[in-house]
Order: sequence, then C-alpha cells, then structure tokens
Amino acid sequence: MQEEDKPLILVTNDDGITAPGIRHLIKIMKTLGDVIVVAPDSPQSGMGHAITISDNLYCDPVTIDKYSKVKEYSCSGTPADCVKIATQEILKRKPDLCVSGINHGSNSSINVIYSGTMSAAVEAGVEGIPAIGFSLLDYSMEANFDHTTKYVKRITQSVIKNGLPMGVVLNVNIPKAGEEKIKGIQVCRQANARWEEKFDKRQNPQGRDYYWLSGEFVNQDKGKNTDVEALESGYVSVVPIKFDLTAHDFIRELKSWNIDD
Amino acid sequence: MQEEDKPLILVTNDDGITAPGIRHLIKIMKTLGDVIVVAPDSPQSGMGHAITISDNLYCDPVTIDKYSKVKEYSCSGTPADCVKIATQEILKRKPDLCVSGINHGSNSSINVIYSGTMSAAVEAGVEGIPAIGFSLLDYSMEANFDHTTKYVKRITQSVIKNGLPMGVVLNVNIPKAGEEKIKGIQVCRQANARWEEKFDKRQNPQGRDYYWLSGEFVNQDKGKNTDVEALESGYVSVVPIKFDLTAHDFIRELKSWNIDD
Repeated sequence: MQEEDKPLILVTNDDGITAPGIRHLIKIMKTLGDVIVVAPDSPQSGMGHAITISDNLYCDPVTIDKYSKVKEYSCSGTPADCVKIATQEILKRKPDLCVSGINHGSNSSINVIYSGTMSAAVEAGVEGIPAIGFSLLDYSMEANFDHTTKYVKRITQSVIKNGLPMGVVLNVNIPKAGEEKIKGIQVCRQANARWEEKFDKRQNPQGRDYYWLSGEFVNQDKGKNTDVEALESGYVSVVPIKFDLTAHDFIRELKSWNIDD
Repeated sequence: MQEEDKPLILVTNDDGITAPGIRHLIKIMKTLGDVIVVAPDSPQSGMGHAITISDNLYCDPVTIDKYSKVKEYSCSGTPADCVKIATQEILKRKPDLCVSGINHGSNSSINVIYSGTMSAAVEAGVEGIPAIGFSLLDYSMEANFDHTTKYVKRITQSVIKNGLPMGVVLNVNIPKAGEEKIKGIQVCRQANARWEEKFDKRQNPQGRDYYWLSGEFVNQDKGKNTDVEALESGYVSVVPIKFDLTAHDFIRELKSWNIDD
C-alpha cells in the first residue's frame, strides 16, 4: 500500500492521553493507517457531550512513547473539544476516521448519554467523519486489553471499507477479559436501562453535608437484540447510534394535541 | 383545586440558580403546581450530559427570593446531577413534571447535544418523569422573557394533561422578544445543522499558545418542518426528543456487513 493510500486516523478518548486503553488503541490503529492523537490531558469520564465555551483551551504536542513516530497532542479540554481542535487546528486535512477509547468501563445502553468516549465519536460524526467509540467492560486502570485487538481491528477495517452513512456512528462494547472466550460480534440496539442512583451523604471537616454519587445499573429491557444482552452472553456489541434525537414516531400524536389552539 | 391535586414540579436549569431565565420559569410554574427548585450554583452551559463521578457534590437550601415560599436548593454539580440529587435526596416523592430553563440561548437543532438545559430534561426522562426543556433565542443575561410566559404555560399545561410516552422529552425553543409578534407553536423535527468551528489562537503572558472556541452556525437542512425553519419564521418550536440513540434504520445494513465472518 502506498503512503497516500493509508487512511488518516484521529485517535482520542476520555480517560486521558496516558490511559492504557488509548495506548492500546493507538497500537492497533498504527497497523491500519496514519495516526494522530489529540486527547485530554486528564480523565474526563462522565463528561457527556460537554464543550468548553467559557474558558480557554491548551493543546500542546506531547511525547508519551519516545519510540513511536505518532504525533500526539495533549488538550486541556473535553473529548468533544479534542475532536474540534484536532480538525480545525492540528490536522492538515479531514481525517478518514476517528476512533475514541478504548474506554475503561462500559458505554452500553444508557451509559452512552453520559459518555465522554462516545461524545468524541459523535462530535466527529457531526463533522462528517466516520467514527467509532470502543469500550471495555472493565473499569480498572490495570485492565487487560489484549483480547480486544482482534475485534477492534475487524470492526475498524469494516468501517474503513464500507463507510458509515451521515449522522451515524458506532458504539462498540467489549466483554472483560478472562472468564470465557468471546463468542463473536453482535449488531444490536441500545438496551432500555438506567442507573438507580444512591447518594452517600457525608460531612466535611467543617460540618457541611456533601454527597457522593453511586448507583446500581438496572436493565429494564426484556426485549431481544440489546447490547446488554449481547455482552452478558459473551459477545462484542455494536450499536449504530445517531444524533438526530427527534422522536419521529411521536410527532403525529404531539401535533394532535393542538397546543396552539 | 385541592392542595393534593396540584402537580409537583421540579425546576432546574444550566445557567445557574440566579439566572433571569430560571427566575421567570419559577414564576410561571408557581401558577401551575407545587414547585421545588434544585439548580446549579454556577453557570453550566455547554456541559452536555456531564455528571459528577470523581468529585463530591454540595446541595444546600438557599433563599434567592425572600418573598417566595418555594423551596430552593443550590447544587455544586451539573444540570444532570441536580435532577439526580433532587429525585434521590431532596424530593419526598417522584415529581409529576420536570422543567429546565429557560435557557439564555438556543438549543435548537444540533445544540441539543451540547445543552446542559436539555441534559437535565433528558435525565428526568430517563427516570420516568415527564420533562420539558425551554430555551430563548437570546444569550443576553438581560434578555426579556415576558413574551415567553404564554407559550411556556400552554405547553406545560398540555404535557400535564396528556403526559409524555416513556423515553420522550420535549425541546422547546422560543424566538427572541421584539422584532415581530410570535406567530404560534410548531411541532417539528431537529434540523440537521452544525457549528463550523473556528479557534482564536492567542498567547498567554508566559508565551504559551492557547485557544478560544468560537464558530458559526450552519444549517445544512433544506428539508421541511425543522426547528430552525420554524424559529426563523417566528414560531415557537417543539421537538420531541428521545434518548434511545439507536439508528434502527441502519441495523439491517450493518448486519449485512457480516463483520463477524
């Protein structure tokens, strides 16, 4: 393959540029194309689709791996900021692909709306760049990513080959290493699940109450073909997601309310 | 109407608890039900669906209007945090409605994914609470909200009367006051628009480069019945949005890729 035929791949994440998940993703992407990394300088988990509008941003070249030729930039902003600044200020041309992750922790089902990893992929999608977010169902910073390589590579190659329609990005979740062998890849839909929050109420040394968010994940979805079900059955889940949030099915009924009369 | 028949309404926003937009919304909601306010202690614009998972949260009673009997709480977290902590820690029962806003600035079209206002409404929706986000197309903190009253009231009353299906919340945008009279309310879909970012590159006093995000809103949507079109024509736009992000239309084609073979 000639140099100019190689796809230009933008890599980002939400756990920060030094996280093992993004280091593993960079290694895989180097086998598939020309890689540029623009990622947050610190963890940004749970940032949703936040962008920095009331503060300035730093974005500087950085060397994490001195044996790598990949150009990397560390950005003070959110994952969505990283994609914006990469495409506008860092990259000389529009990338052929943007991959985000590999996130340390699940972004299946409702987690997608809180996810910094997926917000970077969505931001790229908004800019017309085919994009994939990858997540591993293991929150540990010592998580084993070895078993993800095969699936990340296969899915990425499929996207490079087939492209993605405008307005669609992929949300890929991969079971944790260990217990049993992964059975394959399943294309599925986002499960209807939620977090049942609990707040741990404490007092600071000055006697003021404060709270820590915690919670329990509850899958309310008894239907078939969900990402949660696929993952629990030992499959990698691939959910195509879109950022036209319109509930088209409900428009007719809402019109029948005649709010305007 | 008896006391117990009054709907319990949770009010929040993303511009902070003292912003004129939420003060106006509280005033309207007091005419429709029992109101409790849990809102951010500082502006949270552009926060998307961020939640606070690596830091603690404060949430304290506060008096903004000493002549009002409405209970108000100021929270150190994001709009989504406010809804979570309100339903879990502050409210004695599940509210009948959650309203967020009135935002100082548009949340039409793609702005919905960056919006803290809408993330609060979506968070309520995830918890099974009918929810509406209201925004005014005027970023000024001195914006005139008088003309919004009629529309906010009418849409809220419709939702109280009809309910909303699980998984759907409303995104309401209202034209700026002044130029011409509002023509009415239109139920519509999210326009396919985006921001063309520009970054203003500067140097700090120590000589290090930094960036300010700015950009231009570009409506790429030539189709009919979009929120942007409705607003430009002088209507209040009402878009039903959902948080099942699955691109159901694309699942069949994605399966035909046979990624797993």
